[in-house]
Amino acid sequence: MTIRIDYTNMLAGAVAGGVSANAWETAQRDFAGVHGAVRALRATGALGFLDLPGNAALHAQSTAFAAGARGKFDDVVLLGIGGSALGPIALRTALCKHDWNALSGAERGGWPRLHVLDNVDPGTIAALLARLDLERALFLVTSKSGGTAETMAQYLIVRGQLNARFGAGARDHLVFVTDPKNGALRDIAGQEGVPALDIPPNVGGRFSVLTPVGVLPAALLGVDTAALLAGAADMAARCDTATLRDNPGAVFGVLQWLADTTLGRGVHVLMPYSDPLRDIAAWFVQLWAESLGKHRAPGDPGVGPTPLASHGATDQHSQVQLFMEGTPNKTISFIQLGEHPVDVPIPALHQDVPELAYLGGHHLGELIDIERRATAGALARRGRPNLTIHADRADAWHVGALLMLLEVATIYAGQLYGVDALNQPGVELGKQFTYAMLGRADAGAARKEWDTLPKPDPRASV
Amino acid sequence: MTIRIDYTNMLAGAVAGGVSANAWETAQRDFAGVHGAVRALRATGALGFLDLPGNAALHAQSTAFAAGARGKFDDVVLLGIGGSALGPIALRTALCKHDWNALSGAERGGWPRLHVLDNVDPGTIAALLARLDLERALFLVTSKSGGTAETMAQYLIVRGQLNARFGAGARDHLVFVTDPKNGALRDIAGQEGVPALDIPPNVGGRFSVLTPVGVLPAALLGVDTAALLAGAADMAARCDTATLRDNPGAVFGVLQWLADTTLGRGVHVLMPYSDPLRDIAAWFVQLWAESLGKHRAPGDPGVGPTPLASHGATDQHSQVQLFMEGTPNKTISFIQLGEHPVDVPIPALHQDVPELAYLGGHHLGELIDIERRATAGALARRGRPNLTIHADRADAWHVGALLMLLEVATIYAGQLYGVDALNQPGVELGKQFTYAMLGRADAGAARKEWDTLPKPDPRASV
Repeated sequence: MTIRIDYTNMLAGAVAGGVSANAWETAQRDFAGVHGAVRALRATGALGFLDLPGNAALHAQSTAFAAGARGKFDDVVLLGIGGSALGPIALRTALCKHDWNALSGAERGGWPRLHVLDNVDPGTIAALLARLDLERALFLVTSKSGGTAETMAQYLIVRGQLNARFGAGARDHLVFVTDPKNGALRDIAGQEGVPALDIPPNVGGRFSVLTPVGVLPAALLGVDTAALLAGAADMAARCDTATLRDNPGAVFGVLQWLADTTLGRGVHVLMPYSDPLRDIAAWFVQLWAESLGKHRAPGDPGVGPTPLASHGATDQHSQVQLFMEGTPNKTISFIQLGEHPVDVPIPALHQDVPELAYLGGHHLGELIDIERRATAGALARRGRPNLTIHADRADAWHVGALLMLLEVATIYAGQLYGVDALNQPGVELGKQFTYAMLGRADAGAARKEWDTLPKPDPRASV
Repeated sequence: MTIRIDYTNMLAGAVAGGVSANAWETAQRDFAGVHGAVRALRATGALGFLDLPGNAALHAQSTAFAAGARGKFDDVVLLGIGGSALGPIALRTALCKHDWNALSGAERGGWPRLHVLDNVDPGTIAALLARLDLERALFLVTSKSGGTAETMAQYLIVRGQLNARFGAGARDHLVFVTDPKNGALRDIAGQEGVPALDIPPNVGGRFSVLTPVGVLPAALLGVDTAALLAGAADMAARCDTATLRDNPGAVFGVLQWLADTTLGRGVHVLMPYSDPLRDIAAWFVQLWAESLGKHRAPGDPGVGPTPLASHGATDQHSQVQLFMEGTPNKTISFIQLGEHPVDVPIPALHQDVPELAYLGGHHLGELIDIERRATAGALARRGRPNLTIHADRADAWHVGALLMLLEVATIYAGQLYGVDALNQPGVELGKQFTYAMLGRADAGAARKEWDTLPKPDPRASV
């Protein structure tokens, strides 16, 4: 059980366009300061996500609720967006059987389907609600603030249907995941007796996958959440050392930052060579983008890398041309599995056809691994820096470790970029404009600002 | 029925960080040359995708096959990768009911499910094959070259199972989509009587969605493929004019190129505010990345924009912080629908809770549209250039027009970047390394080159 990062191909010694030996040495020397700053930040209580693996009481909230719900529901519908959705989706894809929602109840071992409504497209919600058996449906409403507009809109629609069908019994089909004390969801839960699980106040949305945000839906689907947390604990411990080269989270964060700031390689691709791990890349996009893309100070033009989700081997036929020969502004981080519990032999048919004959006798798992190695080698050959995160298996332990690795890397990178990795001030203006257009009472200032924006120019239209 | 681009927010007159009036004027003046070069390219026969909407015989290949298959299959399994998969996936998401594969046969109107195997992860293929009723399954094998390694590996596995079950009757469960004359698939089809539809030789994989690559699976699922082609024809005609401001494809391509080359805004985000249209963004990523990311000449460090798929309103909670405040190197192109055939009212519950009360009485379709406008306005306010593609509806006609719009834009952009938008030389080295490791007879040179690559450095490992 281990996660290992091979970053040979990130360094100029091996790859022409890589991080210089000098920059890497300097970063190692300077790391004590970065490490100290992160440790000081932790001492303020700001990095609550690091304490989640050890929070048995919080874990028990999810496992106890899931135990009580066992057998009662065929469909769990998660209402949530951003950090409330990306973690649960990544866990379902990684840790449930393939195409989970299309399986029969028996194929799912009696565990429910999980639908994630992470948008407000009316067609999607209408189609799902038309198909659901409400008697056997549980709605999981997840919002840290308890007031996210999209999630509250979904909740009102669902609540209307539940009230019409069950009256006061609606609460038996609801569970909230929100701040322990504050916000509209918490208030409603208190007033109406709706069960509500906690997101600790010092854990922000994009760092919340190991709170009930991710752990509750995972537990409802039969995932071994104790192993998930154990893997995360192991990685958090490894990422606590002040020696950069022994600290996987810091190695990832420092190398990406060096590639951006010393080489202009600020597009950071995460490319799992694995179907189960593919949605971890989408989860990482939010984590890396929202944490690091911001102003360092008022008036600053803005800094931060651009994360890009990719999927191996599939996107060799979509994006690798760009990675190989396009503007040299990228790093590529692969994830590779050490073993394939299920592998499939390729039969030796059509042996007279050269385009097929060489494949016979190999296995698919071997092929996907070879393709990752070939792509990494080809990128290295062309001077394109890359690294590979090796995980033995795509199980709960390793997924927990991977998530923690990337979360810690984000904190170190935030320190290096000189930004607050924990806030997201840039989304506020759009929220205010939305409130203004919807006529929310307290959005008068935004309404005035909205009216000053340039109107659509009919000459700038085709 | 129309597609309209509003690019007010791309221009410096409206948005501080936008394209200067001077650059835009110059581009309009110079467009005659670009247009002439593209027309000359078309005259060579290289732009076969422009002729697809008018190719009734090719369209009939798909519709005739689909008519013959009607009622015979519950599952269509597409074996294909890259351009052979992204178009079909985008069409299924856009034009079939939501969550198509999870619906019952009756809910699907008797049309089959569509599974797309676009990777070689052994777990995925094993899981699907274990569940399928082979008697009622059709395997659609799509490869322009007829020799794509991943697709051939999948095909061999499937063929092994079909042979074991049906013997010579295996051909009744197969259809190939490939070059009309060349390649392994075409040869096998000829020898064994497997039905095979054509990808015209002058249409490359990423421009092939309107060949049987996309049209056959769409027709098998009951999509109105005539409307799809009619929408594409309408857009192709609009994109033929030499007046830049009247040419939607050229406007899109020229503005993105100007943003990259005059403003350093080379990350090009496509962000549909629509669940049905979301996978068009993934299809666009391949189109834009593989067409434009390359060397202009040997030794060139590489040019080309980096496309980024985003999804509104969802990714307001994932990427918009970065778009608003991160490194100012992006443009954002929204897609917005003019109407929502199904809309959902938000009931006025919890009227005593301010975070929810303002939502009551609105509709979800209204909310998603307002969020797009709010995000575009907020980006404009912060000097971040953006444009919006307005489509009346997410139906076959408009989807066909959208796909053609982006294909034509790619050709104009290729001309401006000075690259061959139709090739992908950068993927060859990785393919050769894969062949070498699999022991393909003709990969000796690649084997030698592979052996010269740097070995994993144990000191560069954590």
